[in-house]
Amino acid sequence: MAEVFANVGKVRFEGPQSDNLFAFRHYNPDEVVLGKTMAEHLRLAVCYWHTFCWPGSDVFGPGVFERPWFKSGDAISVAKGKADAAFEFFSKLSVPFYTFHDCDVVSEGHSIGEYVENFARMTDYLEQKQAETGVKLLWGTANVFSNPRYAAGAATNPNPEVFAYAATQVFNAMGATHRLGGANYVLWGGREGYETLLNTDLKRERAQLGRFMQMVVEHKHKLGFKGTILIEPKPQEPTKHQYDYDSATVYGFLKDFGLEKEIKVNIEANHATLAGHSFQHEIATAVSLGILGSIDANRGDPQNGWDTDQFPNSVEEMTLATYEILKGGGFTTGGFNFDSKVRRQSSDLEDLFLGHIGAIDVLALALKRAAKMIEKDTLAELKDKRYAGWNGEFGKQVLAGQQSLEDVAQWAISNNIAPKHVSGRQEHLENIVNRYIYG
Amino acid sequence: MAEVFANVGKVRFEGPQSDNLFAFRHYNPDEVVLGKTMAEHLRLAVCYWHTFCWPGSDVFGPGVFERPWFKSGDAISVAKGKADAAFEFFSKLSVPFYTFHDCDVVSEGHSIGEYVENFARMTDYLEQKQAETGVKLLWGTANVFSNPRYAAGAATNPNPEVFAYAATQVFNAMGATHRLGGANYVLWGGREGYETLLNTDLKRERAQLGRFMQMVVEHKHKLGFKGTILIEPKPQEPTKHQYDYDSATVYGFLKDFGLEKEIKVNIEANHATLAGHSFQHEIATAVSLGILGSIDANRGDPQNGWDTDQFPNSVEEMTLATYEILKGGGFTTGGFNFDSKVRRQSSDLEDLFLGHIGAIDVLALALKRAAKMIEKDTLAELKDKRYAGWNGEFGKQVLAGQQSLEDVAQWAISNNIAPKHVSGRQEHLENIVNRYIYG
Amino acid sequence: MAEVFANVGKVRFEGPQSDNLFAFRHYNPDEVVLGKTMAEHLRLAVCYWHTFCWPGSDVFGPGVFERPWFKSGDAISVAKGKADAAFEFFSKLSVPFYTFHDCDVVSEGHSIGEYVENFARMTDYLEQKQAETGVKLLWGTANVFSNPRYAAGAATNPNPEVFAYAATQVFNAMGATHRLGGANYVLWGGREGYETLLNTDLKRERAQLGRFMQMVVEHKHKLGFKGTILIEPKPQEPTKHQYDYDSATVYGFLKDFGLEKEIKVNIEANHATLAGHSFQHEIATAVSLGILGSIDANRGDPQNGWDTDQFPNSVEEMTLATYEILKGGGFTTGGFNFDSKVRRQSSDLEDLFLGHIGAIDVLALALKRAAKMIEKDTLAELKDKRYAGWNGEFGKQVLAGQQSLEDVAQWAISNNIAPKHVSGRQEHLENIVNRYIYG
Amino acid sequence: MAEVFANVGKVRFEGPQSDNLFAFRHYNPDEVVLGKTMAEHLRLAVCYWHTFCWPGSDVFGPGVFERPWFKSGDAISVAKGKADAAFEFFSKLSVPFYTFHDCDVVSEGHSIGEYVENFARMTDYLEQKQAETGVKLLWGTANVFSNPRYAAGAATNPNPEVFAYAATQVFNAMGATHRLGGANYVLWGGREGYETLLNTDLKRERAQLGRFMQMVVEHKHKLGFKGTILIEPKPQEPTKHQYDYDSATVYGFLKDFGLEKEIKVNIEANHATLAGHSFQHEIATAVSLGILGSIDANRGDPQNGWDTDQFPNSVEEMTLATYEILKGGGFTTGGFNFDSKVRRQSSDLEDLFLGHIGAIDVLALALKRAAKMIEKDTLAELKDKRYAGWNGEFGKQVLAGQQSLEDVAQWAISNNIAPKHVSGRQEHLENIVNRYIYG
Repeated sequence: MAEVFANVGKVRFEGPQSDNLFAFRHYNPDEVVLGKTMAEHLRLAVCYWHTFCWPGSDVFGPGVFERPWFKSGDAISVAKGKADAAFEFFSKLSVPFYTFHDCDVVSEGHSIGEYVENFARMTDYLEQKQAETGVKLLWGTANVFSNPRYAAGAATNPNPEVFAYAATQVFNAMGATHRLGGANYVLWGGREGYETLLNTDLKRERAQLGRFMQMVVEHKHKLGFKGTILIEPKPQEPTKHQYDYDSATVYGFLKDFGLEKEIKVNIEANHATLAGHSFQHEIATAVSLGILGSIDANRGDPQNGWDTDQFPNSVEEMTLATYEILKGGGFTTGGFNFDSKVRRQSSDLEDLFLGHIGAIDVLALALKRAAKMIEKDTLAELKDKRYAGWNGEFGKQVLAGQQSLEDVAQWAISNNIAPKHVSGRQEHLENIVNRYIYG
Repeated sequence: MAEVFANVGKVRFEGPQSDNLFAFRHYNPDEVVLGKTMAEHLRLAVCYWHTFCWPGSDVFGPGVFERPWFKSGDAISVAKGKADAAFEFFSKLSVPFYTFHDCDVVSEGHSIGEYVENFARMTDYLEQKQAETGVKLLWGTANVFSNPRYAAGAATNPNPEVFAYAATQVFNAMGATHRLGGANYVLWGGREGYETLLNTDLKRERAQLGRFMQMVVEHKHKLGFKGTILIEPKPQEPTKHQYDYDSATVYGFLKDFGLEKEIKVNIEANHATLAGHSFQHEIATAVSLGILGSIDANRGDPQNGWDTDQFPNSVEEMTLATYEILKGGGFTTGGFNFDSKVRRQSSDLEDLFLGHIGAIDVLALALKRAAKMIEKDTLAELKDKRYAGWNGEFGKQVLAGQQSLEDVAQWAISNNIAPKHVSGRQEHLENIVNRYIYG
Repeated sequence: MAEVFANVGKVRFEGPQSDNLFAFRHYNPDEVVLGKTMAEHLRLAVCYWHTFCWPGSDVFGPGVFERPWFKSGDAISVAKGKADAAFEFFSKLSVPFYTFHDCDVVSEGHSIGEYVENFARMTDYLEQKQAETGVKLLWGTANVFSNPRYAAGAATNPNPEVFAYAATQVFNAMGATHRLGGANYVLWGGREGYETLLNTDLKRERAQLGRFMQMVVEHKHKLGFKGTILIEPKPQEPTKHQYDYDSATVYGFLKDFGLEKEIKVNIEANHATLAGHSFQHEIATAVSLGILGSIDANRGDPQNGWDTDQFPNSVEEMTLATYEILKGGGFTTGGFNFDSKVRRQSSDLEDLFLGHIGAIDVLALALKRAAKMIEKDTLAELKDKRYAGWNGEFGKQVLAGQQSLEDVAQWAISNNIAPKHVSGRQEHLENIVNRYIYG
Repeated sequence: MAEVFANVGKVRFEGPQSDNLFAFRHYNPDEVVLGKTMAEHLRLAVCYWHTFCWPGSDVFGPGVFERPWFKSGDAISVAKGKADAAFEFFSKLSVPFYTFHDCDVVSEGHSIGEYVENFARMTDYLEQKQAETGVKLLWGTANVFSNPRYAAGAATNPNPEVFAYAATQVFNAMGATHRLGGANYVLWGGREGYETLLNTDLKRERAQLGRFMQMVVEHKHKLGFKGTILIEPKPQEPTKHQYDYDSATVYGFLKDFGLEKEIKVNIEANHATLAGHSFQHEIATAVSLGILGSIDANRGDPQNGWDTDQFPNSVEEMTLATYEILKGGGFTTGGFNFDSKVRRQSSDLEDLFLGHIGAIDVLALALKRAAKMIEKDTLAELKDKRYAGWNGEFGKQVLAGQQSLEDVAQWAISNNIAPKHVSGRQEHLENIVNRYIYG
């Protein structure tokens, strides 16, 4: 098989002074930060769909990209050509992981049988490519939203046969993920939502989705899959409203179906902002609820109301995000997956490298800045001090449920309390963060 | 006591042909719709704060309104003057209910003792005014967000004394609400949220808020209060982020603290839209989760990113909202409270009447349209038909948990299923709705 | 040629009581309103692209629609089949107008010569179809944004050859529009904008666009085309930022290039809302600037940040829009073009009819309501009264430029003026509007 | 007069290693960057209103701040106390400039005469304070939006007496600004807009505003004021819609009234984002139109839909903004004014210093990064290369108006042109920027 990215060699760390566009200037995989290597912290993954499947189309125009692996021919040989290109890319980029949807890997063909067959054959091939390159699978997933059959949803479809078709894909994709040693299995409910309430039974669709998720978890245990099951929240697009709106919404759903210990969230920056939250908020919320699983690293455009999936390029934003992740204990099975695509105008093959290299260096810088924040964790100190009052007798009793509303009111009145506001010191804290970032 | 609104008499139903600006043209309280009077369906309430306390100020300018009841003097006599004006207004407007915050009713004074004393004296007076006029209390609440002591939150404050102060106010406001025969008690966590994550411990603040809500529920039972405890979701403003973001978020919180059967939501239209949802969505979601309690009827401005609290004026929007409420069984303890204020430029006393009268007629029209939708419920029929497949054997088994993921996949493959998308008929359904609205 | 919509006959006015889904219940083309027929007022047009070209794809999935006219074969016979279906639809729907992009009508082929040839042949065919059916062209336009060559813009492209290609298309599309008796020619600068300022020279691109527009206007006069040249504002999508952001921005651009008397705007409801304006605002602004040309009738989703192009279904919104249009003198060459598409899930052929029929009835209702508003124009009376002070001597002098800042200040001080705010009566005005709409 | 900020001394540059919270770590006023000192480049100003007038109130609560200069007493002595505190602050902060509204400086009293008198007396005092401290005035302005008389606008008010009152204030504020050696005079049309179109005559109000601006410009020349007249765009808030929406809108307005060479814009970051633009966009747009005047440096909250006026803290955002300013030639009369306020919770006096110090260091860092970008201006080189085709014969002829649409089309067809898209290299450019910022 011919090299596709012949002009680009292995991307290596060359340090900040390097003028080589195809080198890392900050990401040094083996450099130890807070007791782990950068590679172990970041667990970087390239996304099959964004980089190898998307043709550069948008709603107002067709594909712009002319990729060597965009070929006609029989499904398997086309798929293998794409896989060869993909693994060449993963290897040259020096990332330890990749991620895929079943239908990214190979055409689903024209029948359910053909789908099973094609995907099984390509799972073999991926296994072989993994073995050859050492690249591992961060997560697999099934695309149960693109095919017209899913226009009205997958698990939440009004037609139970569509539910069954989706179940079949997820069954196969979980199997493949397990066999390929995937660290997680992801579910993105792209069309689990509605276009109009006028034809939608929210309660019924929730029950369908809840049962579906339980089936997934039951199957995981039966399969002996040790990875994490992840739901990826998004508020809308392509649907008017998606049920997995944000982390807090997913949490309520998980509680309802007894799944809050079984399923975690895969948070995407651009989905967070579409839901009206900062990326940091979504991460901190998931950490506080004990459901942070993994991250889809990208960014949206602050002025555009759709998922732009741009490569992350803000060290400032990523430092705060990484700080929250590290404070939450860091990744276990999760990692940073680049759910990012080059712009439609970035039509050269080398743009694929430049997009990833820039983003990896941003994450590396963010990791180093966040590590500094934690090594001398002034924010945590100030936070502890701020809430110190709750460590007193009264605070403890309240939180322990030993005080009734009336008890508290009587205590307050009899003591004639008159608490005053104290400064929240936001500007001071922001200055501290900038100092960590800019030295 | 002198009449304040001397130019306006009792507002009565005069029918669509009336040219009287101070008459209802659609709201006929005693007219029976779907087996109940319009008054029983709508359970209309005027809000003390919006109509009697807000001076017409905004962030860029002070109050514009010169109300006869804006006086200086001792707290109780000022408060009585305001109450007299308010009950004159409620009575003339022919609404059965009103709502209040503790601090709307009377100044909180300069100490916790003074607060208790002032509020107790005015509770007596409100009781007397209710008896005289027959106007009832839809809900009471405590303002635990305006006073500087609450700048960093009430129950979620870093200082437990502030928590205690809030508890004292809620204790007193619940007592007053109970004594005044209130149908509900509301909690709006206006500053239960954060300005910056840099100084905020989400997990700790959630625990504080959870315990606070449990205390409120425990106290309700101890008190023998039969009304409903309501949380009012809002995503932000004044905070950057409020914990009670939307109904789905509140549901997750309630489940976490075992309160999902004890607390319902008071949904406000403008809060729904600030959270990125339609008003109809928030209602339908709350209904589907079994937590719809009451409604704050208003509207936002679709182009402005803050809470404008305008009087509802869209029959189209309110018809869909009312349809969802009626489909959910209608109000039990809840009602439509006008959490609406006249514009800052609407500085005349009579604007207060015109705002309410127009909005009441909008709700009356919406009720009649929604009732027609339900009398011959084409939407429900089409919805049932759409999901009919789930009533088959396979669908039932899936939902009953009798099918594993593998079972379903094997069934799908062996039957070589190939389900097709069928039309969701959104445009047809929208035409139906318009037909109900426009005849 | 075979009938494509065999199940649907000519759509006729049957009045509000009709149960026929394929009848108008409010749109009675020959009914006279304010001295003109409804058909003359509304000048309804169906859009070729939305209804005959879009396959039901979105960013997350391919086409869902299986249209009889989606065929493979030689470009001209495919295009004729589509035109036959389209004109059958236009005729059955009883709309007087249609609109097209050059590339909607026929494939642009594989070279500039083929483009010219294909389009010329289909222009002949359209001419023949127009003659046969009596359907007329509201406007034509050229698609200079979809083809990959336009990825970085058309007139604003960094490559002047792309500018030339776009000029060629516009030249041909203007010629075709002129020959087909089109009432207007439209320019939508879909990719005249930028993805990133980092590679964009705003000043240079503005100069390119300005010269392009001048060339279009010069050519119009040379051609003897009597229709109106229209620019369609949109703020973004597919670009991050589009230069024709909104009406006010377009106005500044036109002034800069001396085109404000030559070019008007084609306002689209959904583009208005994406730009942060109400639809009514954009119309009123264009009217006040003397540049209102035509309307793309649709609606967006208030919760979604992209162009959803839904059929208009709000009589409330459309009444205010129509009121502004009528107050501005009504359409001359413009009309209401349905820049609206059925939802991706609305996959049946008949959904195409239902979408249009519902929307046409909405516009008919809006026209009737707006006409009532104008027949007894209470809003205008109150507005005149509100500004009456400016008709006094002082006001006239100020506006006539006869008072300097100092004059005015001296007059104010010496008269010790102390003007007071008077009520803006917004709620009263909103009640009046609802009374016009709901009787 | 007593020192108010007794705990804080003169803030000095101590370099990045300093642990002193009250030192600059990056802003070294005398350091030369691109041929000018940092002080000369940045022209920093503190804003009277935000720092000395705002009491820490918001829509949901009263002031939190207990400032030593918030006193009762006669207007002049209170105003002098505030001015003393302000100039102590300016001096200690080492900024060369301040800015004010007339009514920030002193109460407007109870009559127009009192306003004139109070303001005149305080202008004397400010002149004395300037002389004593060396602090200069970047700009003055008049508050013609807070007083209830301006509820319906100032120049656009339906009442010409209100116009006259506003004219009086602007006359006086221009006079004071001139006398105090102000470098600019600013107009922010806070309520020049509308709440509802139902009571608004857009055309008439535009004429009023246009004439007002002409009067201001005429007066400037009469006065001999050499500074720049600036309009500050904002899209909304407090109004539903403000006429000076954004730079492009202001430009169209200026062209309409022949003022485009007389008036420039004062761009505020948070106003840009409320208008749906990036801060960089607004600056680049104003530069490209030749109307960039000055900057109100602050930031909004990306998730909140109102003007939060936070201190700028993003070096990334400010670097791009500063790059555009420098590319546009840098400030002449303008500067960076901190239109920023500490958070309501930041209630300590020292928070005022910390907010400014952090922001000044952010601007200093941004200046240094932007200077590096310009010293070796890779972006400009790549941009020149990208548009190089336009320097050819054909491109020049087109822009010079020597080619008609038909000429171009014929040339394109006869040459059978087939231009291809080339990569826009966005990711590469973003990597370059990050390299400038992060080394």
